[in-house]
Amino acid sequence: MSFFPPVRIGMLGGGQLGRMMALAAARLGLSVHVYCPDPASPAFDVAPFRSIADYDDEAALAAFADQVDVVTYEFENVPAETAAFLNARVPVRPGPFALAVSQDRLTEKQFLNGLGIATARFAVVDSLEDLEAGLARLGVPAILKTRRFGYDGKGQVKITSLDEAEDAFAAMAGAPALLEGFVPFLREVSVIAARGVEGDIAVYDIAENVHREQILRVSTVPANVSASTELAAHELGAKVIAALDYVGVLAIELFVVEHNGQEILVANEIAPRVHNSGHWTEAGCLVSQFEMHIRAIAGLPLGSPARHADVIMENLIGDDVERVPELLKSPNAQVHLYGKQDVRQGRKMGHVNWLK
Amino acid sequence: MSFFPPVRIGMLGGGQLGRMMALAAARLGLSVHVYCPDPASPAFDVAPFRSIADYDDEAALAAFADQVDVVTYEFENVPAETAAFLNARVPVRPGPFALAVSQDRLTEKQFLNGLGIATARFAVVDSLEDLEAGLARLGVPAILKTRRFGYDGKGQVKITSLDEAEDAFAAMAGAPALLEGFVPFLREVSVIAARGVEGDIAVYDIAENVHREQILRVSTVPANVSASTELAAHELGAKVIAALDYVGVLAIELFVVEHNGQEILVANEIAPRVHNSGHWTEAGCLVSQFEMHIRAIAGLPLGSPARHADVIMENLIGDDVERVPELLKSPNAQVHLYGKQDVRQGRKMGHVNWLK
Repeated sequence: MSFFPPVRIGMLGGGQLGRMMALAAARLGLSVHVYCPDPASPAFDVAPFRSIADYDDEAALAAFADQVDVVTYEFENVPAETAAFLNARVPVRPGPFALAVSQDRLTEKQFLNGLGIATARFAVVDSLEDLEAGLARLGVPAILKTRRFGYDGKGQVKITSLDEAEDAFAAMAGAPALLEGFVPFLREVSVIAARGVEGDIAVYDIAENVHREQILRVSTVPANVSASTELAAHELGAKVIAALDYVGVLAIELFVVEHNGQEILVANEIAPRVHNSGHWTEAGCLVSQFEMHIRAIAGLPLGSPARHADVIMENLIGDDVERVPELLKSPNAQVHLYGKQDVRQGRKMGHVNWLK
Repeated sequence: MSFFPPVRIGMLGGGQLGRMMALAAARLGLSVHVYCPDPASPAFDVAPFRSIADYDDEAALAAFADQVDVVTYEFENVPAETAAFLNARVPVRPGPFALAVSQDRLTEKQFLNGLGIATARFAVVDSLEDLEAGLARLGVPAILKTRRFGYDGKGQVKITSLDEAEDAFAAMAGAPALLEGFVPFLREVSVIAARGVEGDIAVYDIAENVHREQILRVSTVPANVSASTELAAHELGAKVIAALDYVGVLAIELFVVEHNGQEILVANEIAPRVHNSGHWTEAGCLVSQFEMHIRAIAGLPLGSPARHADVIMENLIGDDVERVPELLKSPNAQVHLYGKQDVRQGRKMGHVNWLK
């Protein structure tokens, strides 16, 4: 196009987040190439170009890089080697530094603490002795987590008494782990921020999140927090995204904790990508988190994160999809389904944005 | 999917309307097969299945029909034979009757008048004598139009004096034509209505439309009409869509005319499809006209047409796309581009929804 840089976007990962980013790119007239090993990936259905190949297939990665102007991803577990291989050929956004920080729970906490942001107290666990020493210091309950590759509660064990240490350590199967002290939170919230190639930053209103079985169920905006907590979360998001020299959208999960009668924020984790707790932006903002991410990585102006409605986002997980025929009749529900053919327990099938 | 009839949607036509319907289908998790002769069709980029073939290619049409559960279309000039061929194999929605009525300006006006709906006065023109007699009866100015295959002002000649009759008739190139009397309208509006397979009807608020060079430029909701005119337009839309035994979304272009100090509605034409003057629904409603159409033809509940915002929709035509970088910075603009590679004069490249 004469008026527009012809940005061809490469997308690593073909799940629902990739699909929703591809839909947002299409609305901006941009072309998407989805790269994913799984031929049944839902994102393939809405993109003009696709590669079905493993993330360590260098021939396929090189061909992919040749065909796109910028690469992004929908999941934080992109192998570092894959990101480095691609980044030598075409910009990968967000960059390898953000991936490295967020892929390791230890690095992530050290990075956050270095910015003056509170996290759960933690202990590095490479041995049963480390774990026992950590439990002695942090107390119970505490949570033992693999340092890498966890999501939706996978790779986590809650420890409620000292005699559970041995089993918990065995459950890590030799993977490097981190013991996290329990955070007695009032509520969970998340802040979603975006940063453009020129350093401009946009921050959405924070969402209040409810998890069940460690999977996000409901996000509500506005969150039930004080105005100063809302502002503090925005500032925290802006600080983190700038310190990561980040391009794109990221999410930071936060605990709201009461401390001497005040609300304080404790950072739980960083997701270097669009996030389930930001799906409300589709119904509540003119520029959704998906479009915001595409604008950022394509070098376009970010646009406004302003919220024009109160929204409750509800995930449709597993059999929840049986409710779809009823949901479609609700006058204040916007239904979004991901085109997944197999309904499985715990599988995210879609979501509903309820306008209040 | 277990919870949902596995509706595979066949789409005739691959332009921006087909593209936006395919995007809406994807948001509902439904699969789309786009059929269009032009390999550069923008809708191909967002659909998992495509056929590049002519509308009279019976082998390609038969294969297409085998692969989908329902067929719809983005343009009213689908050949009657194509619709009949497909409808013998799989439901075509809207059905052949709606196509037949709307493809011929004479049939359309007779159908509307039969429902008690006012239209411009008209005269059938098969000869120069017909035209001269028509001009004598209807007066000037008047507009001579081919009965079939017109859009965006194509196939139309305005006649401002009797001595233009011969040239105007020659411009029809022997095609059956209709002379329409001039309607001295206050404003142009359109009503967009939807009807489901069970006869349920939803009507959007009417838009006020401004054309330039016979191409729609701006649609505004709410329209600047009285509450009784708004209501009358809704009733007119519901009456027409029921009388056509229609399934899907249709648009009716209307003139608002002052008559004895009252606003009255005069129907201009019916478009048996989603319509440019309904693009505002993307930003102003939870269920856009595109999703509404997909729901209707897929046999799903229609959902609510309620409007939650005031919107001005502006088309981006030809060089207007040069404004995109600025538009992307506007906090109250939602930009939608169609992914067309070549900018041409008069070509619809995208649109902007301005929230007021």
